[in-house]
Amino acid sequence: MNTEQISQYMTSLGQQARKASRVIARATTATKNHALLATADAIAASADELIRANALDLQAGRDNGLDEAMLDRLALTPARLDTMIEGLRQVAALPDPIGSIRDMKFLPSGIQVGRMRVPLGVIGIIYESRPNVTVEAASLCLKSGNACILRGGSESIHSNQAIAQCLRQGLDAAGLPQSVVQVVETTDRAAVGELITMPDYVDVIVPRGGKGLIERISRDAKVPVIKHLDGICHVYVDDRADMDKAEAIALNSKTHRYGVCNAMETLLVHRAVADVFLPRMARRYAEKQVELRGCPVTCSILPEAVAATEADWTTEYLAPILAIRVVDDMDAAIGHINTYSSQHTDAMVSEDFTRARRFLAEVDSSSVMINASTRFADGFEYGLGAEIGISTDKIHARGPVGLEGLTSEKYVVFGDGHIRQ
Amino acid sequence: MNTEQISQYMTSLGQQARKASRVIARATTATKNHALLATADAIAASADELIRANALDLQAGRDNGLDEAMLDRLALTPARLDTMIEGLRQVAALPDPIGSIRDMKFLPSGIQVGRMRVPLGVIGIIYESRPNVTVEAASLCLKSGNACILRGGSESIHSNQAIAQCLRQGLDAAGLPQSVVQVVETTDRAAVGELITMPDYVDVIVPRGGKGLIERISRDAKVPVIKHLDGICHVYVDDRADMDKAEAIALNSKTHRYGVCNAMETLLVHRAVADVFLPRMARRYAEKQVELRGCPVTCSILPEAVAATEADWTTEYLAPILAIRVVDDMDAAIGHINTYSSQHTDAMVSEDFTRARRFLAEVDSSSVMINASTRFADGFEYGLGAEIGISTDKIHARGPVGLEGLTSEKYVVFGDGHIRQ
Repeated sequence: MNTEQISQYMTSLGQQARKASRVIARATTATKNHALLATADAIAASADELIRANALDLQAGRDNGLDEAMLDRLALTPARLDTMIEGLRQVAALPDPIGSIRDMKFLPSGIQVGRMRVPLGVIGIIYESRPNVTVEAASLCLKSGNACILRGGSESIHSNQAIAQCLRQGLDAAGLPQSVVQVVETTDRAAVGELITMPDYVDVIVPRGGKGLIERISRDAKVPVIKHLDGICHVYVDDRADMDKAEAIALNSKTHRYGVCNAMETLLVHRAVADVFLPRMARRYAEKQVELRGCPVTCSILPEAVAATEADWTTEYLAPILAIRVVDDMDAAIGHINTYSSQHTDAMVSEDFTRARRFLAEVDSSSVMINASTRFADGFEYGLGAEIGISTDKIHARGPVGLEGLTSEKYVVFGDGHIRQ
Repeated sequence: MNTEQISQYMTSLGQQARKASRVIARATTATKNHALLATADAIAASADELIRANALDLQAGRDNGLDEAMLDRLALTPARLDTMIEGLRQVAALPDPIGSIRDMKFLPSGIQVGRMRVPLGVIGIIYESRPNVTVEAASLCLKSGNACILRGGSESIHSNQAIAQCLRQGLDAAGLPQSVVQVVETTDRAAVGELITMPDYVDVIVPRGGKGLIERISRDAKVPVIKHLDGICHVYVDDRADMDKAEAIALNSKTHRYGVCNAMETLLVHRAVADVFLPRMARRYAEKQVELRGCPVTCSILPEAVAATEADWTTEYLAPILAIRVVDDMDAAIGHINTYSSQHTDAMVSEDFTRARRFLAEVDSSSVMINASTRFADGFEYGLGAEIGISTDKIHARGPVGLEGLTSEKYVVFGDGHIRQ
């Protein structure tokens, strides 16, 4: 397709999505769940086709020199299909957020006013290689009453088209229009440019992928973007910390998984406990072969630490590397966090009530924790039942974004012929 | 100032605002209320200076040929100063939204998770002539824990600077930094361009003014905008309406005030009652000299109505003009509304329970009403206690925006050394 054809194609997807959004917005919970469960059945029945389509992507990936990690993310196995099926059933089992009315109350004029939860409309989702995102994203949009346009990575195009076919079967079975979920069929990058600049047809964009992709989309989008940039997460170990808890949390936050946004990247330690705590932690990190980069005080305590540079305080390693800084007190820790944190997740370990109260109030991050591992910052761990991403924005959705983040509220007003005096 | 100087000046305002935002975010309710009440006292004590400064603006306005309506909006009178003072005291009396924690609950892992309300950070507000907006906007930002940068109309520059002086006195009295509220001192338009493209220093822009201003700002802004475009509001009179209620609501929605965004612009009437209802309403509208523009059926019933064109369905008259369309049934009414409404406020008059239930679910507007006048769509009438504007967006804030619309939520997590397994 040339540029003009892509523009026409995307406009037509947008128009169909807008039309479908009106239907899905008013669909009953039972109908939406029917579509989700029928999609699960279609995936189970189409396992062979899905794996065949995926084989085409894997072959192309190998031909194009994708590395093993990329190929692994791309691969659909019977176990991964089961996870997709299970995910659809879980989303079907979640409570339907749409139509709930809260805070309905009588006002002095005699009218009743409340707020009803409603879908956003059309959601555009842009993501990279993993084909399971196609099912995850579609199921969350569908359950929250939104139409969606999905644009997956070009390396998973065959897998995504095969999954789209199952989604269409599910929508058909429930009597819903197929265009409630549309998967972009061209791999041309211009399609992304169109998708993010159609405010008439797309209400919000959710990009999932690397920082470069997200920055580019945020810069160029003409519609709101629910986005997640880096996760530069901190754990501050206070001098009033229980040292056993501090050790468990500092170890888990860094080493439970390295390549995730809620892993700790910088450890802050109160000066009064640094002499005791740092050598103890260094032994644990050594077992896991975590490289330590420290401030001058840290390096004076830990000979194995290399000197940290300014860049270390602002780097999301996503690797077995940890920056460590010794601070004079909690104020210095909060100062460091509010300067260098990406406002994703920051934790303090302390038994001090008054300091906990201040840390909660003064650290401006999407998740602020006391005596818990940063690894808990996750939609499932928070009981949202699902997660479309973690927002480091403050507008609309902040932190793990579940179904509610894909909705809005409208005011509903009841009267009995009331007029304004 | 030349372009570069304006850029430097705005950057410096932005940096100071960001710094001040950290202080005001953690200020206690008592401190914030102290600043509000001290500002009220400063305005009372500075009445003469304020009226003198305003006289300079009025003189310049006359010299520049502003019309009487503009000059009236611009004028500060003792009565208007009293309204400003009363407004400050009302905002001080509102509950503080910041720091409230909701939905705190234990999760299966043993952690407790809840959501704490927090300020957005720095809010940029761009508005036109009325100087009282300076106090209103500043007081709402301050109470919600935000720093703000205010950019009023150039025709009210002297008044706004005099008001800014009172705000600084109020902040001083409470021991808060003066840069919590900054009023832009240059009238150069380039300052607006800078203000809306400083994502490092400004978290959200709230434009208040004409549609042209808001469209321009939305197009060029590099930060989220809480905006309100038109109010093309509808009242649908169903054939199951109580005709007395319908008459009262159709009259009040159109004629209570003309130049407001929540006035009805289009009346939709069910075919089965049009013959009775339209002549009855036409007599009431004639008393108020409202011009009627109708669809062919309307014109056949009301000889005084002129033929409506397509443009009439999409025009916000803000004047004693009303478009009228006869529809076959509620579905046609909902179809018309979802096509032409600006999604501000739409009402149905009907005694039918099942239709009310459907109208609420299917009309996609920021306020949806049953048997009440569209004129109720207002922060004060909804019990918000204050209003910074009405949002016709779906993202973040929708409908009347009070203090809560100027805030966000973060997750707070409590544990006892919990780690993720």
